[in-house]
Amino acid sequence: MRNLWQPFYLVEEVMQTITDLLNVREAAEQRRSIRSYEPESIPRADLAEILRVAGLAPSAFNLQPWRFVVVETPEVRAKLSEAAYNQKQVRSAPAVLVLYTDMKDTLENVDEVLHPGMDAAAGAAARKTILNSFASKGEAEREAWGAEQGNIALGYLLLAAEAHGYQTSPMLGFDAEAVKRLLGLPDHVRIPVLVAIGKGTEEGFPHHRHPADRIVRTA
Amino acid sequence: MRNLWQPFYLVEEVMQTITDLLNVREAAEQRRSIRSYEPESIPRADLAEILRVAGLAPSAFNLQPWRFVVVETPEVRAKLSEAAYNQKQVRSAPAVLVLYTDMKDTLENVDEVLHPGMDAAAGAAARKTILNSFASKGEAEREAWGAEQGNIALGYLLLAAEAHGYQTSPMLGFDAEAVKRLLGLPDHVRIPVLVAIGKGTEEGFPHHRHPADRIVRTA
Repeated sequence: MRNLWQPFYLVEEVMQTITDLLNVREAAEQRRSIRSYEPESIPRADLAEILRVAGLAPSAFNLQPWRFVVVETPEVRAKLSEAAYNQKQVRSAPAVLVLYTDMKDTLENVDEVLHPGMDAAAGAAARKTILNSFASKGEAEREAWGAEQGNIALGYLLLAAEAHGYQTSPMLGFDAEAVKRLLGLPDHVRIPVLVAIGKGTEEGFPHHRHPADRIVRTA
Repeated sequence: MRNLWQPFYLVEEVMQTITDLLNVREAAEQRRSIRSYEPESIPRADLAEILRVAGLAPSAFNLQPWRFVVVETPEVRAKLSEAAYNQKQVRSAPAVLVLYTDMKDTLENVDEVLHPGMDAAAGAAARKTILNSFASKGEAEREAWGAEQGNIALGYLLLAAEAHGYQTSPMLGFDAEAVKRLLGLPDHVRIPVLVAIGKGTEEGFPHHRHPADRIVRTA
């Protein structure tokens, strides 16, 4: 199943020629939570590029504990909708991205994320530092840590989707255990968010945010 | 102290005229963790705009539990450096952003984040839904939830900084209790990350990320 995604690395060069992406401020300002979508499926190359950009998010120790399941088939979306308390956007959007984090997988395969620019000694030292820093944590604490990191990628993902002309709706209202069962995910993983994605057919609510002087101070 | 930030809302219109911001993909691709910076301080208008964009990040129930302390004065930076195990970038960067999350403040002032587009009945219902959903959680669990949301704003912040021509280094290596004492933050808050920010004077390491087929699958 994973192999479906491999060929799309080939289209990266084509994607590089796109010059009409939104800048960061435009994407942040235009993005709204959207609950109603056109039914047409998202071209695979667009989804792959949005997820590639999301994956460029930084993470502590570069661990990248995030994983994604792209739910597109109507049968699975219908069951996902049930697990998400029948929120309208799960049935309406052509795809729902399940962002989960898996620190067990991450730490068992830590060599994959060590930077290839390090020599053997530096790599060994980095591996030891990483494993030591999690050695005293229980599984639940490790996975909670990974979930927190996952939301950095969520920030990237939402802006990348908007920049590519897609709207989104991040959701926390779902039965995580039911989603894991549906998708065959291990018990220990965390699911920071589901994200409905597609071409929106409504405007959404304008932003309502704290003024700067409520949330920023200097020292 | 907070009032220092208020006037910069006045420059938003000027900032809107900037058209050379990086697009989302460029910002994601160019961003590296940078540990060495030019000493010049960041114009207040740029910092205000970057934090404004960060604050446009979505959060569950629109709670926006994130808060920022901009640490710029040399004395406070020196003490912050000690609390961050003397990481080079804390002394090198002209500013360090302390991103903390405060669910106690958020829930005690929940009316501030209710959307003004709701009528009184809808607002009352939303307030009840929000408070009920946290009623069964203890303080630690509530604050951990808020910290997870904080990292959505971090994703936005890192891309906004890069788009405006500033480099960043997000850091998890610090003594959170020492940082709280230094800045006079309440015990209950969480600090998801410190972010050094400025004009970088090094290239940083190229990205090393999982290929898509390692972290994406379809269903």
